[in-house]
Amino acid sequence: MISRDDMAALDQADSLALLRDKFDLPDGMIYLDGNSLGPVPKGVSARLKEVVEAQWGNDLIKSWNVHNWMDLAQRVGDRIANLIGADQGEVLACDTTSINLFKLLAAALELRPDRHVIIGQADNFPTDNYLAEGLIRLTGGRHELRLIEGDDLTAAIDDSVALVFLTQVDYRTGYVQDMAAVTKAAHNAGALILWHLCHSAGALNVRLNAAEADFAAGCSYKYLNGGPGAPAFLFVAKHLQDQVQQPLSGWHGHAAPFEFERAYRPAPGITRQLCGTLSILALSALDAALDVFDDVDMADLRAKSQMLTALFIDLMEKRCGSHGFTLATTRDQTRRGSQVSWRHDMGYPIMQALIADGVVGDFRSPDILRFGFAPLYLRYVDVWDAVTVIDRVMVDRRWDRPEFHQRAAVT
Amino acid sequence: MISRDDMAALDQADSLALLRDKFDLPDGMIYLDGNSLGPVPKGVSARLKEVVEAQWGNDLIKSWNVHNWMDLAQRVGDRIANLIGADQGEVLACDTTSINLFKLLAAALELRPDRHVIIGQADNFPTDNYLAEGLIRLTGGRHELRLIEGDDLTAAIDDSVALVFLTQVDYRTGYVQDMAAVTKAAHNAGALILWHLCHSAGALNVRLNAAEADFAAGCSYKYLNGGPGAPAFLFVAKHLQDQVQQPLSGWHGHAAPFEFERAYRPAPGITRQLCGTLSILALSALDAALDVFDDVDMADLRAKSQMLTALFIDLMEKRCGSHGFTLATTRDQTRRGSQVSWRHDMGYPIMQALIADGVVGDFRSPDILRFGFAPLYLRYVDVWDAVTVIDRVMVDRRWDRPEFHQRAAVT
Repeated sequence: MISRDDMAALDQADSLALLRDKFDLPDGMIYLDGNSLGPVPKGVSARLKEVVEAQWGNDLIKSWNVHNWMDLAQRVGDRIANLIGADQGEVLACDTTSINLFKLLAAALELRPDRHVIIGQADNFPTDNYLAEGLIRLTGGRHELRLIEGDDLTAAIDDSVALVFLTQVDYRTGYVQDMAAVTKAAHNAGALILWHLCHSAGALNVRLNAAEADFAAGCSYKYLNGGPGAPAFLFVAKHLQDQVQQPLSGWHGHAAPFEFERAYRPAPGITRQLCGTLSILALSALDAALDVFDDVDMADLRAKSQMLTALFIDLMEKRCGSHGFTLATTRDQTRRGSQVSWRHDMGYPIMQALIADGVVGDFRSPDILRFGFAPLYLRYVDVWDAVTVIDRVMVDRRWDRPEFHQRAAVT
Repeated sequence: MISRDDMAALDQADSLALLRDKFDLPDGMIYLDGNSLGPVPKGVSARLKEVVEAQWGNDLIKSWNVHNWMDLAQRVGDRIANLIGADQGEVLACDTTSINLFKLLAAALELRPDRHVIIGQADNFPTDNYLAEGLIRLTGGRHELRLIEGDDLTAAIDDSVALVFLTQVDYRTGYVQDMAAVTKAAHNAGALILWHLCHSAGALNVRLNAAEADFAAGCSYKYLNGGPGAPAFLFVAKHLQDQVQQPLSGWHGHAAPFEFERAYRPAPGITRQLCGTLSILALSALDAALDVFDDVDMADLRAKSQMLTALFIDLMEKRCGSHGFTLATTRDQTRRGSQVSWRHDMGYPIMQALIADGVVGDFRSPDILRFGFAPLYLRYVDVWDAVTVIDRVMVDRRWDRPEFHQRAAVT
């Protein structure tokens, strides 16, 4: 059986091990929730100080020109493009994931005026379905959101389908869709595809253009470490950019915002997906956070993520096999995201007890304990030590204290 | 004739004079562009450091509960409510002005299903009209945006009108609408009203509830000093909140976001106007910025703003009367915002020369020089000194250098 020393040896040999030094991680915590909120990259605080004091403070309104605030959404977008297999000029950092999904949903439906079905997943992250609902309601009910149970949507794609709207990684089970295959199935049926990348970007080797994806959006506060509620991103394939018009037609998406023309005239390219004035503080923090990805090969990152999750499954089954956990994540590592989820009837209090003991994951209703393995800053010994704490919490029944049963507002 | 000493005496007597110390203002600059981007309030940098290092850094995901990130949009909204004559629970700080206007436009039109006209201003800030255009296009052209020339819209409000959509302060001329009278005219015709407050909030004594306004939105990066692209705000009158459903139905507007229900169920009250996860860094910076308004009476602030603009008009006419400036702002101080605009054929290069000489205003096409007078941090002597610089730039024809004729990307 593998030992802690074996894990330490893996860390020694890990070509990505030094990336951990680029983060400020709290002492005594094993942070397995980077899939909810990534930790602080070291350059963020200094960058914010510079933006507040030197840019906003000293140069004030002139900063829009002299510090290039005006194209920050595009520049940060280009950096994210490098991490998700997109080209320069195909990605913007802006708004929230929800708002970006709304824009892209509307754009996609307009490109398929004779079709009325949006295919989604029943167990999708709910905001996706809420937004499709909201758009359908607003546009008078001409479209139908058809929610499919399970992970295989391809059978449901017929020639009534305008758009397949799918999360690449299931937020609960961590199941990874085959982006190339599903995109191809959608296109074969004449449908478009919109990928939600919240649990992919920054951890998986996402290859949007290799898969010929049409649209994508995601957040930057999980594996991209951009900070709580950091600006989201969106992707529109180059060949579609000038064909689509998005409904949130604010002035930053105008071809000439400072001409103050009376009628809306969309900017060429990806820029038409902008709407209002974006937070320069939030975009700058994200920009600084992305520095940790410089020179990182996403294929290497993905390989480490797969090793971490495989070892966690293995060690949990060997060391915690009698504690009643049922694996909710696939063993097929090509279909497994950067997380491992376990079902347990006492999932909620167990997770609270783990957090109190320094192993931070999260809980998702009704019974899922979710552990995220961000390959940028986690060590192989962290996997070992997390399993040690889980074992102790279960053996000692520490989770059965009253305080761990009390539900917090945010889980 | 009034002298610089008279202005210094006004500063001595100014009960708001000490507020200037709450800002970090660059040396040697007279900043008359707080109507585009407010300067840095002193507490912002320290607050960001705390949020990044102590909250995000140390407490990571737990911060949503332990630092109450979850209701930051409501808490900051309540502080803005105090400045615009709204009640607690009627305002949120969220998203961008453009996005908030879209939400409220859609909500208002849904409340008047039998009416098809939106009344707007032809010379409105263009994003307002662009968004109405975008919404009308998205919903299939059932509505009409009727743009009225000039400042008097009341004659155009008939029983076909669903919504009157109006900027309280014209961004170019500074003309202030009579909020109570126009709201009443809209209501008398059975229409709703949506006020755009970008150039009002933080400088005027806005009294939304006294005027019985229905909806409002605005930014916080101008007179509220929240930072470049700071989160915007929106207002929905209490009695309408549960009647409206907004189309950007993201999970933060759900009644129980962490239940992850399949169907959208709007939260009660103002919270249903939320959409996605907001930047905690940007909201925290705004929260800190609002500290400067503690204990400030908006009526006092408005009175100082009126004095500053009256004196600027007076001094410009006396000292720069021969330089070809034409007043574009009304002399009626009840109808004048916190800015003074002058038309001049050479407006663009004159403004660039003034900025180079430390008097920072801005230019708006085709010929408007715009000077904002933020009463929180401007002194009466600043008015005198600004006029001195303007006179010098005109007498010396300094504006006629080639570099001042080159247009920047952002004006």
